[in-house]
Amino acid sequence: MRKKLEGDERREHLATLHGWSDAADRDAISKRYKFRTFSEAFGFMARVALAAEKMDHHPEWSNVYRTVDVTLTTHDAGGLTELDVRLACAMDEIAGTTGS
Amino acid sequence: MRKKLEGDERREHLATLHGWSDAADRDAISKRYKFRTFSEAFGFMARVALAAEKMDHHPEWSNVYRTVDVTLTTHDAGGLTELDVRLACAMDEIAGTTGS
Repeated sequence: MRKKLEGDERREHLATLHGWSDAADRDAISKRYKFRTFSEAFGFMARVALAAEKMDHHPEWSNVYRTVDVTLTTHDAGGLTELDVRLACAMDEIAGTTGS
Repeated sequence: MRKKLEGDERREHLATLHGWSDAADRDAISKRYKFRTFSEAFGFMARVALAAEKMDHHPEWSNVYRTVDVTLTTHDAGGLTELDVRLACAMDEIAGTTGS
């Protein structure tokens, strides 16, 4: 899970995700989520925080009112791993039921 | 509350805060909070989110594991207002009882 994804394996994993893009400056993926209100944005963050804590894998993220910007990478591995792909999927699933 | 603070009034208000500094690039104040764990950091954010929603005034903030970086400004006023100072005080009070 914490082995850095490379080559075809990396491409195959990323092909399962929607709306995520490679970060410009390092081996990581990013996505911007937009919600209708701060309440919805923070509700999303609260649910993701619970999922992240359970996975023991945490996002880098920022929030300005109803926007949440997320970057995922695995520091231990020095890049993208399956853990990031799993957390990205969990975030998309939560966003889909939170009102984005 | 939404009148931009300037001159002596700005200085007097900022003198009541601890650990906040002027943002480099605009009329705003910033602070980094460090907690022991992600759980404590996000617990802090959750309590601040409730306070912010109640005030109808929200922080710009980012979180990486146990660190929370905050910037406060009032977009409507194009700079720092009493609302920011009130939110900064509320955040410090919450951080003081959340484990930072």
